[in-house]
Amino acid sequence: MASSPSPSSPPAVAGISDNELTAIYDFAVLLTREAGQRLAEGARQRMQGTATLDSEEKDNAVDIVTKADEDVEAFVKQQISTRYPDHRFLGEESYSKGQSRDYLVDSEAPTWIVDPLDGTVNYTHLCPMYCVSIGFVVGGRPVVGVVYAPMLNQLFHACRGKGAYLNEDKLPLLHSPVPPLPANAPSGCIFSCEWGKDRRDIPDGNLARKVESFVTMATERSGKGGRGGMVHGVRSMGSAALDLAYTAAGSFDIWWEGGCWEWDVAAGIAILEEAGGIITTATPQEDGTVPDAHLGGRLYLAIRPAGPSDTETGREAQERVVREVWKRVAVLDYTRPGI
Amino acid sequence: MASSPSPSSPPAVAGISDNELTAIYDFAVLLTREAGQRLAEGARQRMQGTATLDSEEKDNAVDIVTKADEDVEAFVKQQISTRYPDHRFLGEESYSKGQSRDYLVDSEAPTWIVDPLDGTVNYTHLCPMYCVSIGFVVGGRPVVGVVYAPMLNQLFHACRGKGAYLNEDKLPLLHSPVPPLPANAPSGCIFSCEWGKDRRDIPDGNLARKVESFVTMATERSGKGGRGGMVHGVRSMGSAALDLAYTAAGSFDIWWEGGCWEWDVAAGIAILEEAGGIITTATPQEDGTVPDAHLGGRLYLAIRPAGPSDTETGREAQERVVREVWKRVAVLDYTRPGI
Repeated sequence: MASSPSPSSPPAVAGISDNELTAIYDFAVLLTREAGQRLAEGARQRMQGTATLDSEEKDNAVDIVTKADEDVEAFVKQQISTRYPDHRFLGEESYSKGQSRDYLVDSEAPTWIVDPLDGTVNYTHLCPMYCVSIGFVVGGRPVVGVVYAPMLNQLFHACRGKGAYLNEDKLPLLHSPVPPLPANAPSGCIFSCEWGKDRRDIPDGNLARKVESFVTMATERSGKGGRGGMVHGVRSMGSAALDLAYTAAGSFDIWWEGGCWEWDVAAGIAILEEAGGIITTATPQEDGTVPDAHLGGRLYLAIRPAGPSDTETGREAQERVVREVWKRVAVLDYTRPGI
Repeated sequence: MASSPSPSSPPAVAGISDNELTAIYDFAVLLTREAGQRLAEGARQRMQGTATLDSEEKDNAVDIVTKADEDVEAFVKQQISTRYPDHRFLGEESYSKGQSRDYLVDSEAPTWIVDPLDGTVNYTHLCPMYCVSIGFVVGGRPVVGVVYAPMLNQLFHACRGKGAYLNEDKLPLLHSPVPPLPANAPSGCIFSCEWGKDRRDIPDGNLARKVESFVTMATERSGKGGRGGMVHGVRSMGSAALDLAYTAAGSFDIWWEGGCWEWDVAAGIAILEEAGGIITTATPQEDGTVPDAHLGGRLYLAIRPAGPSDTETGREAQERVVREVWKRVAVLDYTRPGI
């Protein structure tokens, strides 16, 4: 049995003892693994020809839900409500069935935020970059996160104060020591971004603004009127939860995205922050200050964990990279009530 | 010991007996696995802080070579020359050190075409989408291919006449039955593409033409003057060899790319074709005919394996999708001597 924390160390999460938090973390890991195995079993049955895909469209032809999403969410919700009847639950599929787009996370109540299947398009094609994402949020902040991609055998997990891991490996993967960010960032950085579901052909619409931003990040430094970012690589995997987990790992240096929701990011934010990464808004801030991202803000910019250099701390370097990205990206338009 | 093929069945590869081909295939699988484990060991040492990355630029800041590339290529070349001294060898790193950009694959001699590390940028960041790619080419056609991504535990392998596999799973992953391509493709398709290393800010340059093509593929059907493709998703992993392997698996439906070289694609083409996929040129053909891709042509369009529908064969559907892609993409400019 774990020893009690010493009286001098306050609990890592207000209102929850260290033993309670450990139990929640262990439960979240087991639950996410079991949920992911259910997804993998569904995939295996389709490979064996004993099951077919049952999917339908939501907002448009690229916004879909499968029976797997719904079945796994029902399983996860039932497990959580049995074990923690006093905790709140927010899941993508039950939320999406409602008409509201309000932000429903109560800053007081401990809340489980669940995406039973992130990367649904990948799942329908048996493309391996799909996952279960389960976050546990207290006071509006993700403190436990588990992201499991069963087809990649990658289980990312973290708990505030207890470190972040990919399977057994500590995150970031390079941590002896954690490398500083490049002095000429965003050059030298892998830039992760997603095309998303808003495909409308509108002048100055989100698709046009995203692509303009991607191109500026990719172009040689002298290009785009001197705004070119010459990033090391541009990557799109089709899963926000995995994008955040890869940023926590240091596999990606920068993730910039608009349009996803709290269930896409809650677990990933817990993993990223525990690994030492930061997350702020995708929208350039005129005064250059770097606010914490709002969990439901739908606009995110994440920077990987960073060690110090001779001239700056890791945090200073992360904020420098945030500002370098902001110089090169457009303002995206994803609004929701009350945020 | 394997039984000899019956006298009535000609060998799958001209001039090479079935027993010889099986031995070459087995050797290729073991060699690729060993090479990948060497890459993974290098990554593990960096994670443990017992080794650092040793890399240098080639053509520009995003075109790099690491000591791992060179060490693994030397190992692979030595293994092949010992076992098959009469076969030719073409490796990315030894080729790149020369000044020539000529296409060196002799259509007569059996040739091993090796990329010791595809996805070098990913490897430097410990981003999992890197691999070893080993192809065996006879008469200018890839007949054995092995692609191994050790950090994903994904070993793709194929030999002409013997099927294609991801680890133990037959490709395409959905094969009972193989699904037809969508009637309204490219809608419903995952589109794989790469930003590449040519980042020059030139009006109508390769970067601009690529991005214009990506955007047309992604935009709603009514958009871009009715040319919008509304693909299901746009993915960029940063490894041509893995892109082809994922297309063979059916995880991607379409891969369109310009600028890579024969060592990036030789193994992947063997896997793709053995799984039932096709590969042609990225450049739209005015008469609509679908030629086989030239191994050294640097311009590729791959379509996943496809089953028949009520109205067309799988091959007819693949050629239909090729033509639908060609309607939406620009002509890229990647030339080389003699092709």
